[in-house]
Amino acid sequence: MNQRVGRSSIRLAQPVCVIAGASIVGKKEGEGPLGTLFDMVGEDDLFGCKTWEEAESNLQKDAVYMVMEKAGWKAEDVSYLFAGDLLGQCIATSFGISAYNIPLFGVYGACSTCGEALTLGAVMTAGGYAEHVVCVTSSHFASAEKEFRFPLDYGSQRPLSASWTVTGSGAFALGLNQKCRAHITGMTPGRIVDYGLKDSMNMGACMAPAAADTVARHMEDFHVTPEEYDRIITGDLGSVGQTVLIDLLREKGIDIADRHMDCGIEIFDAEAQDTHAGGSGCGCSAVTLAAYILPKLESGEWKKVLFLPTGALLSKTSFNEGKSVPGIAHAVVLESPAVK
Amino acid sequence: MNQRVGRSSIRLAQPVCVIAGASIVGKKEGEGPLGTLFDMVGEDDLFGCKTWEEAESNLQKDAVYMVMEKAGWKAEDVSYLFAGDLLGQCIATSFGISAYNIPLFGVYGACSTCGEALTLGAVMTAGGYAEHVVCVTSSHFASAEKEFRFPLDYGSQRPLSASWTVTGSGAFALGLNQKCRAHITGMTPGRIVDYGLKDSMNMGACMAPAAADTVARHMEDFHVTPEEYDRIITGDLGSVGQTVLIDLLREKGIDIADRHMDCGIEIFDAEAQDTHAGGSGCGCSAVTLAAYILPKLESGEWKKVLFLPTGALLSKTSFNEGKSVPGIAHAVVLESPAVK
Repeated sequence: MNQRVGRSSIRLAQPVCVIAGASIVGKKEGEGPLGTLFDMVGEDDLFGCKTWEEAESNLQKDAVYMVMEKAGWKAEDVSYLFAGDLLGQCIATSFGISAYNIPLFGVYGACSTCGEALTLGAVMTAGGYAEHVVCVTSSHFASAEKEFRFPLDYGSQRPLSASWTVTGSGAFALGLNQKCRAHITGMTPGRIVDYGLKDSMNMGACMAPAAADTVARHMEDFHVTPEEYDRIITGDLGSVGQTVLIDLLREKGIDIADRHMDCGIEIFDAEAQDTHAGGSGCGCSAVTLAAYILPKLESGEWKKVLFLPTGALLSKTSFNEGKSVPGIAHAVVLESPAVK
Repeated sequence: MNQRVGRSSIRLAQPVCVIAGASIVGKKEGEGPLGTLFDMVGEDDLFGCKTWEEAESNLQKDAVYMVMEKAGWKAEDVSYLFAGDLLGQCIATSFGISAYNIPLFGVYGACSTCGEALTLGAVMTAGGYAEHVVCVTSSHFASAEKEFRFPLDYGSQRPLSASWTVTGSGAFALGLNQKCRAHITGMTPGRIVDYGLKDSMNMGACMAPAAADTVARHMEDFHVTPEEYDRIITGDLGSVGQTVLIDLLREKGIDIADRHMDCGIEIFDAEAQDTHAGGSGCGCSAVTLAAYILPKLESGEWKKVLFLPTGALLSKTSFNEGKSVPGIAHAVVLESPAVK
């Protein structure tokens, strides 16, 4: 019965199956290095809608639709949705998925939300409280710029440490004892880590301490070393945050340099696409997991990865009031079904 | 193992204990009908802070502190926090509870968040994934007016259907097999219900359809009638929403008129305190549960209640873009330990 590991990690007695993943992205993401892997690429970033927020809602709707289709489920087969986004009061979620009439748990962990949703969805499934669960998160470049920074029309200059919010949504179908693309076998939920940094244009550095904290606690709780994992994958630290993460963990005697991967670095060609530090957002780690990571686990090329989306817990209000940018990172252990 | 009931409800094989509840409120709430029941009442609504947001963060911090003290826990004894508020990107939470260093699941369900947090906290505890869980939610009149409506300095007139956001935070300590004030024995998580209403000054009417949906699904899933419950308690429908809820349920053949209670109606003296339709906010249902409902369950005066906080899923952006105000309501079954 006791599935607790260490101080605050969970090892699932029975692994939860990621039965399917689905991804939809914007035009720019479609032109990036992972472009051909996504299920759907939009022709423009409005996706036929009138506002950026409505477009983001549509992304979630489409991602959930695709993942249910892949899993062979109808909406009424799904017990619960775990969903979130970056907008104030999570409106991309509220207006995106209401048509499905599925009971909803709204979750918020900034860009770490995909990890939080998978963790809670897996707990709900593993405990026998739900048969089928869908987890979905999204972000949208234009709605995020409006929410956190400046209207696009201002044409603001962006420093090199800034990241580019990914336009996209990734959804995942979870269940037990089914044909699956990956197993969720454990989790180390994140806690808020605040080094007092205040630069919202350098979110990688703001989030890296939280990622380091989660990785270190994970290694301690599970009594493992980085060699246990083919990849340790953060959500959207970008190039600046990556350096900080590797340095912070080295100070704790943990070296992940040879196996660290960051979804934000993978999704764009920083040079050619002028995205500076890399991609970011609730959608960044979600679409990379669906399109790039799951296939590698399914094939057995990777046997085990630690997937930890990273979030920066700021708002424009907290920023304007001179507050720091605390970070959080929720880690999920994903294993290949090929080696089970 | 199967703890699912009906289409989307949960019956806990082993009840989860609400070991303690704690409440802190503002001056106005302290002057209301429940005033003497709260653990702490502020002298003014800034609680010694510089901004409303900081004050709200402080409320969460204090509520968590008090509930841990009542439960006899230190921060390191708590496996997980489930926390949320109404502000964009849930900043009351992010800046309120980071000092405790407890792994955090941020949840968002507007004013229904207390029900969502208790549901997820109970699942996490009942499944053996956590030993001790704390759930906390908050709202603040001034930070909410700023977030959703107009700066207080404008002195805007409010229609009679408007509610008054409660300044307060309620926290709950959950565990298994312990001396407890109430048992959580079941849940019916909410789904988004949107009747297309757009009046953000009449949120009771916007949320009532969601409450009706959850109550009706609950009765169906558990094969019970309202007589099963001493009280069916909504979060913050207020006087307008109460009428709509009772009418909508009557159309479904369910009569709750003689046992419906609304935390928003209880917390203020609408006439004397000029609060119009009643209290609202993430804190409203939470402090009423902690200060008023738990004692009645503990003493056995009430044997079983259905507690369903209600949320209006709007943001100022969605409102300005002409969107409707969808609702959601998460129901939790609370039983008296005296009759177990």
